Amino acid sequence: MAKELKEMTKRSENYSQWYNDLVVKADLAEQSAVRGCMVIKPYGYAIWEKIQRQLDDMFKETGHVNAYFPLLIPKSYLSREADHVEGFAKECAVVTHYRLKNSPDGQGVVVDPAARLEEELIIRPTSETIIWSTYKNWIHSYRDLPILCNQWANVMRWEMRTRLFLRTAEFLWQEGHTAHATREEAEEEAMRMINVYADFAEKYMAVPVVKGVKSANERFAGALDTYTIEALMQDGKALQSGTSHFLGQNFAKAFDVQFVDKENKMQYVWATSWGVSTRLMGALIMTHSDDNGLVLPPKLAPIQVVIVPIYKTDEQLEAINSKVAGIVAQLKKMGISVKYDNADNKRPGFKFAEYELKGVPVRLVLGARDLENNTVEVMRRDTLEKQTVSLDGIEEYVSNLLEDIQQNIYNKALTYRQGNTKKVDTYEEFKEQIEKGGFILAHWDGTSETEERIKEETKATIRCIPFEADEESLTPGVCMVTGKPSARRVLFARAY
Amino acid sequence: MAKELKEMTKRSENYSQWYNDLVVKADLAEQSAVRGCMVIKPYGYAIWEKIQRQLDDMFKETGHVNAYFPLLIPKSYLSREADHVEGFAKECAVVTHYRLKNSPDGQGVVVDPAARLEEELIIRPTSETIIWSTYKNWIHSYRDLPILCNQWANVMRWEMRTRLFLRTAEFLWQEGHTAHATREEAEEEAMRMINVYADFAEKYMAVPVVKGVKSANERFAGALDTYTIEALMQDGKALQSGTSHFLGQNFAKAFDVQFVDKENKMQYVWATSWGVSTRLMGALIMTHSDDNGLVLPPKLAPIQVVIVPIYKTDEQLEAINSKVAGIVAQLKKMGISVKYDNADNKRPGFKFAEYELKGVPVRLVLGARDLENNTVEVMRRDTLEKQTVSLDGIEEYVSNLLEDIQQNIYNKALTYRQGNTKKVDTYEEFKEQIEKGGFILAHWDGTSETEERIKEETKATIRCIPFEADEESLTPGVCMVTGKPSARRVLFARAY
Repeated sequence: MAKELKEMTKRSENYSQWYNDLVVKADLAEQSAVRGCMVIKPYGYAIWEKIQRQLDDMFKETGHVNAYFPLLIPKSYLSREADHVEGFAKECAVVTHYRLKNSPDGQGVVVDPAARLEEELIIRPTSETIIWSTYKNWIHSYRDLPILCNQWANVMRWEMRTRLFLRTAEFLWQEGHTAHATREEAEEEAMRMINVYADFAEKYMAVPVVKGVKSANERFAGALDTYTIEALMQDGKALQSGTSHFLGQNFAKAFDVQFVDKENKMQYVWATSWGVSTRLMGALIMTHSDDNGLVLPPKLAPIQVVIVPIYKTDEQLEAINSKVAGIVAQLKKMGISVKYDNADNKRPGFKFAEYELKGVPVRLVLGARDLENNTVEVMRRDTLEKQTVSLDGIEEYVSNLLEDIQQNIYNKALTYRQGNTKKVDTYEEFKEQIEKGGFILAHWDGTSETEERIKEETKATIRCIPFEADEESLTPGVCMVTGKPSARRVLFARAY
Repeated sequence: MAKELKEMTKRSENYSQWYNDLVVKADLAEQSAVRGCMVIKPYGYAIWEKIQRQLDDMFKETGHVNAYFPLLIPKSYLSREADHVEGFAKECAVVTHYRLKNSPDGQGVVVDPAARLEEELIIRPTSETIIWSTYKNWIHSYRDLPILCNQWANVMRWEMRTRLFLRTAEFLWQEGHTAHATREEAEEEAMRMINVYADFAEKYMAVPVVKGVKSANERFAGALDTYTIEALMQDGKALQSGTSHFLGQNFAKAFDVQFVDKENKMQYVWATSWGVSTRLMGALIMTHSDDNGLVLPPKLAPIQVVIVPIYKTDEQLEAINSKVAGIVAQLKKMGISVKYDNADNKRPGFKFAEYELKGVPVRLVLGARDLENNTVEVMRRDTLEKQTVSLDGIEEYVSNLLEDIQQNIYNKALTYRQGNTKKVDTYEEFKEQIEKGGFILAHWDGTSETEERIKEETKATIRCIPFEADEESLTPGVCMVTGKPSARRVLFARAY
C-alpha cells in the first residue's frame, strides 16, 4: 500500500488521473467487465450506505415513503411525453429477447430468435413514465393525494464516456416521484426537496452548494422547472450534485392521470421528481481529498477513528491492548465507529499510509512510552497535524475533534469556492477567467441562443440562476455577449 | 375499504385467490404494465425494509460487508460453469441494443439496428459469474481471504407463470458471495448462513422452518450442496424460504481464481453463495393471515399499534387527543411504532376493518366513556380478542402484548406444522396423504430416478433431508417406492 500510495498521481500533475487513482487505490470502486459499469467495492459501498441511511431518514421526516417500481419500461411509454423521449429514449439498454438456447455448434449459448418480445423493453433511465402509468390506477379523487413516493434503485444510461461514480452506464440512485392536487403544492415540494439535498450536502458531506434554478436549456426533459445544487470541485469545475423537478401536469397529461377535486371537477395531477445518485460519491471525493488520499467528513466515514499500537515486546502489546479496550468501548458507547488495528503482519508506517489513503478522520497512535506518560498521539486527517494529548478524557477529545474536522473541511471548501467565484462584465474577461476555472457570475440576456453560443465558444454552461445572491448581482445590467438587457447575474462554469 | 374487505375470497373457498386478494387489498403489491413484474407498494415495501434492516444487521454481525456488482452480465460468462448455464441461462432478459431512434414514420421510437452489441448482455438472474470474474482480480494470496460480500439487488428470471412476491420476473433479494482458503471454512460459512436465515425466519417472521440439505436434483445449479429452510403454508404446501450453497471450487475453476497458500502453493478458492428474496413476503403473508386480512408479526409490522378515538363532540375529541398524545409519546420512547388515526372523514368501523386488513398487531379504541372510567379497549389482531384494561400502565401492557403476539403466532404456526407433518411407509399411503397437503417424512432409496418418479406421479418433491430429526426418522428403512434400502426418512411436500 505504501508503495501504491507513492504511485498515486498528484492533483497538480493530472487532476483527472489523481481522481481515478484515488477511487481505485482507496478501494472505492473499479471498472467491471461490462463497458461503463462499475463495481462498488465494500469500502466505497459503506460510504454510500451512510449517505443512503441519512437521506432516507430525511425523506421520511418530510413525509415520504419508499416503494419499488419495475426495472423495465415498455418502449412506447418513453414516447408518451414529447420532451422526455428526446432527453432519455436515445442512449439506453434495450431488451429484445427473453430466452437463450444452446448454440448449434455446441459452444455456449445463443439468443433464441423465437423468443423475441412483441414490444421491446428499456432498462429504466429514470422512472417517470412507468410510475405515472402506475399512479393512474392509484389516483381518482383529491383524497388520494398527495402521493409522496421515493424509490432506491439502479438505472442505466448508455453513456459513451464514463468515469467512476461521476458518469457510469449503470448507477445507483434514489428517485422521488410525487403527485399533488395543486400547482402550488407541487412547486413547494420541489423546493422542499432541493433544500433537503442542500442541507444534506452541507451538513453531512461538508460540501457547500449553490442552490438555484436551471435555465431552459439545462432543464430535465419534461420539466417546467429544474432546481439544482451545484458544487465546485478543486479543479475549478462544477459538479451538479442533485436536482428537483417541478413537472407541472406534463406526465399526468401524457398518462391521463386525473382526479376529482373538492368541487367535483376533473383535474390533471401536478407532479415533481427529484434525485441524487452515486455521483455524490464523486463530489465527496473531489471536494476534500488531497495528494495523500481521501479526506472523509466524519459524519459519513465508515471508520471515524483508527487506533494503531507501537510496541516491541508481547508484554508491551498486551498492556496497550488492555488500555485500548477501554477507549474502544467508550468511543462505541458514544456512537463513534472505531477500529483497533493491532494486526502484526503490517508495519505501523504501512498502516499509517493505508488509513490516510482511506481518509479515516482521526488516528490515535499508542506506544509503550505513551502508556508510561498517560498520553497518546492524535493525528487529524484533514490537516495531517499531530498532537500528543493526555489519555484522560481522550474520548471527549476525539468526539470534539470529529466535530471540528467536519466543520473545518466545510469551511475550507467554502473558502475555496468563495475565492474562486468571480464577477465578470465583458465576454473577453469571461473567456480569460473561464480558463482559470471556478464559478463566474455574469449578466446574460436570457436567450437560449446566447447560452448556446457561450457553451460552444467556451465550454461553459449556466449552472443555475442562484436563489441567493448579493444585491449587486440582483441589479439589472447588460448581457456580456450581446449587450442586451439582463435582469441579474447568473452562475456559469465548466462542469462535469 | 369495508366494502372491499367483504369482497375478499375466503381461504377455504380458494386459497390462491385469497392470497392474491390479500396482497392487492392490503396494499402490498400489484401487477405492473410489464409482464410478470410487480410494483411493491409503500405498505409492502415498509415490511420489506424491516426485513432488510434486520437481515443486514445479522449479516454484519457475522462479519459481512455490502458491495455492488453490475446488473448486466456478458452472455459468455453464463456458459463458463457447465451446470450453472443449464440452470440459469435459458429464461432470461437479453439486452441486444443500446440505442433507439425516431421512427421513420414519425410515430415514437424504434430500435436502432446500427446499435447492436457485439456480445449480448443478460440481466443478472443471479451474480455468481460476474462476481467471480471480479474476485479473480481481488484474490492473489491467502492474505486476501476470506472475502465476505453481500449485495442487495434486483434480479430477473423470465418465469412463465408468475404470482405476486412468490414468483415474479423481477424480484428484490440479497445475495452473499464468499471466498475462502479452505473447504472446511466454506462449508462452515454455508452452514452459518442457513442458520442466520432460520433464526431470522423464526424470531422475526415468526415462521417455523425445517433446516436441511437438498437432494442432488433440487440443488442450485453449480453447487456441491444446497442448504435450505422450508416453511409450511396454511394450504399444506411448502415454501422454500432461503438457501445457502456450498459451491466447492466450481466457480473458482470456471473463472480461474487461484491464490498462493501459506505453503506457497497455488490453490483454487472455495466458495459459497446464499440468498433470500421478496419471496419471504409471500411466506410472511401466507403463514399468519386469515380471512379478515393480514396478520403481521409485531417485529416486522410497519405500524405496531393503532389508536382510534370514538367521539361525538369536538370537546370529547379534544379530551381524547390530549390523553392519547401522552400515550403515543411514551410508546414511541419505548421504540414502538404507533399511529393515532383521528381523521374525521372515515367512520370508526371503516378504520377497524382497514387496520385489520393491514395486520396492525394491536388496536386501542378510546371513547369518551373510557376516559371517564380511565380505561381503553385493546384488540389483538392475531386472535381478534378484545379486552378493556386500565389506562394506568397501558404502555407496558401494550409492550408485553406485542411480545405475546409475536410468540403466539409462532406457536400457532408451529402447531399447525406439527399437526401436518406425517410419517408414511408405503407409496399408496403417500399418494393419499399428499392430497391432504402437509409435510411427509418417508423413506427414499437416494436415487434421482425414484425422486423424479415421485415428482411425476404425485407432484411432490423432496424439500430437504432435515438436519434435525427424531431417532426413528434416522433409523434405516426401505424406500416406499422401490423397497431398496434407505438410510433415513426425508421430507416431502408439494411446493410453491
